[in-house]
Amino acid sequence: MNQDYIKPDNWSIIEEGFDRESVKSSESLFSIGNGAMGQRANFEENYSGETFQGSYIAGIYYPDKTKVGWWKNGYPKYFAKVLNAPNWIGINIEINGEDFDLNSCTEVKNFRRELNMKEGWYHRSFQATLKNGTEVAVDIRRFLSLDLDEVGVINYEITPLNKDAKIIYKPYIDAGVTNEDANWEEKFWEPLDVKKSGNEAFVTAQTFKTHFKVTTFMQNTIWARGEKQNLSPTSVDTIADKILFYYDVIVAKGEKSGIQKIGGYTVSLNHADTISAAENIIQTALAKGYDQLLQDQIDAWAKIWEMSDITIDGDVKAQQGIRFNIFQLNQTYLGKDSRLNIGPKGFTGEKYGGSTYWDTEAYCIPFYMATKDQQVARNLLTYRYNQLDKAIENAKDNLGFTNGAALYPMVTMNGEECHNEWEITHEEIHRNGAIAFAIYNYYRFTGDYSYIPEKGLEVLIGIARFWHQRASFSANKNQYMILGVTGPNEYENNINNNFYTNYIAKWCIDYAYEQIQKVSLEYPSDHKRIMEKVKLSETELQEWNKVAGNMYFPRSEEMGIYLQQDGFLDKDLVRVKDLDRSQRPINQKWSWDRVLRSPYIKQADVLQCFYFFEDHFAKDELERNFDFYESFTVHESSLSPCVHSIQAALLDKMDMAYAFYLRTSRLDLDDYNKEVEEGCHITSMAGTWMSIVEGFGGMRVKNDALHFSPKIPKEWGGYSFKINFRNQILKIAVDHKETKLSLEGTKELTVYVNGAPVLVQPNN
Amino acid sequence: MNQDYIKPDNWSIIEEGFDRESVKSSESLFSIGNGAMGQRANFEENYSGETFQGSYIAGIYYPDKTKVGWWKNGYPKYFAKVLNAPNWIGINIEINGEDFDLNSCTEVKNFRRELNMKEGWYHRSFQATLKNGTEVAVDIRRFLSLDLDEVGVINYEITPLNKDAKIIYKPYIDAGVTNEDANWEEKFWEPLDVKKSGNEAFVTAQTFKTHFKVTTFMQNTIWARGEKQNLSPTSVDTIADKILFYYDVIVAKGEKSGIQKIGGYTVSLNHADTISAAENIIQTALAKGYDQLLQDQIDAWAKIWEMSDITIDGDVKAQQGIRFNIFQLNQTYLGKDSRLNIGPKGFTGEKYGGSTYWDTEAYCIPFYMATKDQQVARNLLTYRYNQLDKAIENAKDNLGFTNGAALYPMVTMNGEECHNEWEITHEEIHRNGAIAFAIYNYYRFTGDYSYIPEKGLEVLIGIARFWHQRASFSANKNQYMILGVTGPNEYENNINNNFYTNYIAKWCIDYAYEQIQKVSLEYPSDHKRIMEKVKLSETELQEWNKVAGNMYFPRSEEMGIYLQQDGFLDKDLVRVKDLDRSQRPINQKWSWDRVLRSPYIKQADVLQCFYFFEDHFAKDELERNFDFYESFTVHESSLSPCVHSIQAALLDKMDMAYAFYLRTSRLDLDDYNKEVEEGCHITSMAGTWMSIVEGFGGMRVKNDALHFSPKIPKEWGGYSFKINFRNQILKIAVDHKETKLSLEGTKELTVYVNGAPVLVQPNN
Repeated sequence: MNQDYIKPDNWSIIEEGFDRESVKSSESLFSIGNGAMGQRANFEENYSGETFQGSYIAGIYYPDKTKVGWWKNGYPKYFAKVLNAPNWIGINIEINGEDFDLNSCTEVKNFRRELNMKEGWYHRSFQATLKNGTEVAVDIRRFLSLDLDEVGVINYEITPLNKDAKIIYKPYIDAGVTNEDANWEEKFWEPLDVKKSGNEAFVTAQTFKTHFKVTTFMQNTIWARGEKQNLSPTSVDTIADKILFYYDVIVAKGEKSGIQKIGGYTVSLNHADTISAAENIIQTALAKGYDQLLQDQIDAWAKIWEMSDITIDGDVKAQQGIRFNIFQLNQTYLGKDSRLNIGPKGFTGEKYGGSTYWDTEAYCIPFYMATKDQQVARNLLTYRYNQLDKAIENAKDNLGFTNGAALYPMVTMNGEECHNEWEITHEEIHRNGAIAFAIYNYYRFTGDYSYIPEKGLEVLIGIARFWHQRASFSANKNQYMILGVTGPNEYENNINNNFYTNYIAKWCIDYAYEQIQKVSLEYPSDHKRIMEKVKLSETELQEWNKVAGNMYFPRSEEMGIYLQQDGFLDKDLVRVKDLDRSQRPINQKWSWDRVLRSPYIKQADVLQCFYFFEDHFAKDELERNFDFYESFTVHESSLSPCVHSIQAALLDKMDMAYAFYLRTSRLDLDDYNKEVEEGCHITSMAGTWMSIVEGFGGMRVKNDALHFSPKIPKEWGGYSFKINFRNQILKIAVDHKETKLSLEGTKELTVYVNGAPVLVQPNN
Repeated sequence: MNQDYIKPDNWSIIEEGFDRESVKSSESLFSIGNGAMGQRANFEENYSGETFQGSYIAGIYYPDKTKVGWWKNGYPKYFAKVLNAPNWIGINIEINGEDFDLNSCTEVKNFRRELNMKEGWYHRSFQATLKNGTEVAVDIRRFLSLDLDEVGVINYEITPLNKDAKIIYKPYIDAGVTNEDANWEEKFWEPLDVKKSGNEAFVTAQTFKTHFKVTTFMQNTIWARGEKQNLSPTSVDTIADKILFYYDVIVAKGEKSGIQKIGGYTVSLNHADTISAAENIIQTALAKGYDQLLQDQIDAWAKIWEMSDITIDGDVKAQQGIRFNIFQLNQTYLGKDSRLNIGPKGFTGEKYGGSTYWDTEAYCIPFYMATKDQQVARNLLTYRYNQLDKAIENAKDNLGFTNGAALYPMVTMNGEECHNEWEITHEEIHRNGAIAFAIYNYYRFTGDYSYIPEKGLEVLIGIARFWHQRASFSANKNQYMILGVTGPNEYENNINNNFYTNYIAKWCIDYAYEQIQKVSLEYPSDHKRIMEKVKLSETELQEWNKVAGNMYFPRSEEMGIYLQQDGFLDKDLVRVKDLDRSQRPINQKWSWDRVLRSPYIKQADVLQCFYFFEDHFAKDELERNFDFYESFTVHESSLSPCVHSIQAALLDKMDMAYAFYLRTSRLDLDDYNKEVEEGCHITSMAGTWMSIVEGFGGMRVKNDALHFSPKIPKEWGGYSFKINFRNQILKIAVDHKETKLSLEGTKELTVYVNGAPVLVQPNN
């Protein structure tokens, strides 16, 4: 944890001072994205110090061959990885004959980075002295256009401070990139074509195996003496997968010069001819010009903030934290394209392969449901519906299930399982539960039942079939059990009767059963169509109910708690507070076996169940379970503190709720888990949003109505957020005296505050 | 399983008929070795069909980079793999202008392989018709000399049957080889030098990273018209890592011609100048000549059989099985070199990396103790003593133990852990128990206590310290537990309180404690030296005793059995006999998670404990546990049936004992587990020996005396074996009427037969 690294600011992420040690962390934190592509905050100019180069295109991945020590049956044949895309930001610079490189400058001062979240741009400035004695001031702004989502823009300015300078700008595009991932050194891009025309250039490459074709492009404009220079490259270097232009500029001491570079990608997912598409998009961008592109960016972000901003008064760090989270979520996924989903690191790193996890259903959907048009959440559900066949295939071919049982992949790009550790791939089957829960949650929130007869019910049936087959009967206990799983707490592997898994399994069967009945009554033609397809008999339904009705849940009656799994109480139960601080994070300090046998919990597990099914449990039961499990939870998953924050708020443990809120909202900014250099934790950022809206705001949807039970941390003066509830925009503002509700539009709305109905009239 | 594949024969392994489908399996079964090197029965001539090329040199390995999906703390940095060594057997052959290749011949008849175990050679003969119509008879004998263990010899003869033939013999040596292992395609040998002189050639190469230097050599002599031809190569092809000679011979129809090839390896483990060493060994071999080399081989094997043969009357398959096992063990390890150990596949395949496992201590040492000079077993113990520092380092650096706790590697070449699956490397810690048990077993059998004060005690202390630290206290049960392990039954991972592990852990601590007391009294200067080194306090010893004295053992009082682990009875307990045969072997038919949650046991686990500590349990307790666990054991580990066989014999279940015996002794010959093409199960072959000696013979050592309780399967007429007990050679012959004991040498010996003392007088 490093609390002094990012300067507190309501709207910007700011770093001051040049520290080689934090370059990789800053590259993560200052990442920019526009839903279609994104990139780490790598320097444009050459940098010989430690750096993690990363630029990513949504939907572009590579199926790497599964490589393991000993093969185990059921492993998928490949694992998908997000690819470091060709570099379009590169601008090498030569100043008075010396390659400009911050790592070799004799002095760097006034170094400052700013990620302006309100307006959606990244800025870097500093003064540096080169080894040849030339002192320069440098100022760079970069953004990825929300409007033209294939386009990024860089404005790079240099002012020599102590002498005249000959500056050679060398902008390039380069498909000869590799992944950071240390295990494999292969290249993933096959160069196809390099083309130039005036100040424009195009490198076309395709990914091996998947054959995604990408044209990476650039267009360069040189500025000097206050005006645009009509310069062509003095020279060009071309190799198979890279092209570099030379622009020579003589600049007087104190005079500014610069380069504006337009770049980006056109991809075969969207265009038949990616080169023509690139030529066209450059023309569109040039026609707007830099100033207009920037203004469009500011306007587009203003629209996003208008709906999704959360304000917090009197606590800059908390305000900065929540805005960083909302900003990153919007940089990662905008809900336009149902082929896409939300990778745990978004566009900020390679880890977790840029693939889709249960994070989407368990954490992200509530944020997108409440801050976007409901079609966005429906797109996310449809993503899974479209992959149902592959989930059935996965269960059948990899794991030996039958009769249309579906197991959704733990990690996927295209619906196929693409991760290869048995304890995760084969055993972390609870993901199936979250996918079913999201269908329920979508209907609960939006009231749009149509999704279930149209698509959702088939998914629910495939999942129920899986759970029915996956449970086994224990003659010993005369109940059904689910053996050999990994629960949400990944610091346990291959355990028996994970409470969360058993509970959601039973729920899935029950819910699927209920929806079959409901669709049968209310949507008979859909029911007929589906039953003809899935061939579900009454006998099979009875078998489902036998399992769901007699599921075993591990419990200590003495302590009045559910057990995370069989045998949990046999551990050496030293609480986190009694664990030497030097031993944490345990996943970095301990070998895996030690982690596994310890009582420490990576993320909410029993409590995740209480979160999903809050209404199923009494509050005192929640409290007993919360007090027990919280004391063993190390929150080394980014997905953990938000759930604890929400429950702490519900239990009136506001100091704790606030601490968890800070931890979740500033997880990356303060680098709690000492790993931000690998990228930011995008999916958990939706959990931060939930901490405020569901935690402090106490928002729930019950019986088609919004409920709030607002609380406020003592550190805050007030806070506010907006909710799009069934196409009505409600704003909630809470301070220490009152809760104010206001409604956009023309229709009134009844909501419940602390259980009492409140009729909210629209503003206008 | 394929019972008709190998012809029954008392002394030879025989295959008749050419079946492309079984080439890889036969390559395993007909492997030859001499302790220093070994090789699969690959054809000398080119073969374009499916084949698994393998030639191996003892002690030569490669530390491959650990490659995993997600890195877990504690993984070793590399995993060692046995390397396919350069090819010295290759002889390409051209007959009347056509490359001779059994896969493309139009007819192959009278194909026959024989591995003559009595005399230690491998023979292959057949008649084949080439596509060009030439019909030839071919006869090849090959052996690896026991006397000159760097030398192998091939005699390759061809007789054209239907026309004259121009035959070009093209013997070669080739370091451009790769491993069969499909995951990595890299080469592991760096060529250094290619040299030729007359009919000799030398290819020197070194392994990458480990830099083992190996000179592969050949010397060729051409025979035709009944005599040696004074031929030099007509031509030579040389590339960086390969050299190939051409010898042209014109042979009349019906006339035999041939090539004698001497080849092999000289290695930097044994020679500073490997090329000179190769030149010398060729001279030594040539001086003896082919006939003498063969006679020496026959004599050397006669000496081995003299001591280690087991005879079985009236059951050829059983006789062939046990001899195959004894033969392979002797081909693999002869106990000359304490740097070497026994890989699970010996020289017959790559799997298990040719590394050392607990197999050595748990299964192999009893065989070598009883059939060799006791120095051989002591060498095997010393191998671990020499690696104690690395076991301490492994426990400390990889797994966070302290204070000299030692965890021996699960898989090793040089004392370092070199396997990287957490469930095995980090959790299969019971190996430490077998290593301590072997020290006890060695003393029990040989009476040589000196090993303990000299070396063994330090090993015992390091191991006891490990178990003491590895146990954790369960306040819930008020006992010590060992959580998160994989027991001998590898079809369970990360389980709590594996009975075998908990039991042997307690035993290790108790035994180390007792030996410290004994050494203190009887070897005070050793005690002083060791205590100064290990700094063991009275307080620490008390802590040991606290753990060992209050260890938890999972048990069902109701059923009167120990539980393999916590929760075992919660499984869906369908017995193996009730499992559809089509589902087996389950490790090939089921995904890993299904295997793990099933009740099926890969190999003896609770029963392994009863085997090691037979005296600790009453016979009726053994019987209850045997009956229960046997019904769930699928014996998919080669190490399993031998233990069940021994216990079935003890429990007078002789039909079962005999079935298990056949399964263990003919595991590879009948290919029970459908995997012999990967190599033979060498270490389990020692278990086969135990099945007869300890199972049917009932041999035990108690109170410094040999005990027997002989039984005989009804299928046999009689059987006999020899035991080297404390430098006296006792022969035991059992038939349905009586047990005959005879003793070599001059001293008498008291043994116990069915509990009664028998004074055996020496023969002479």
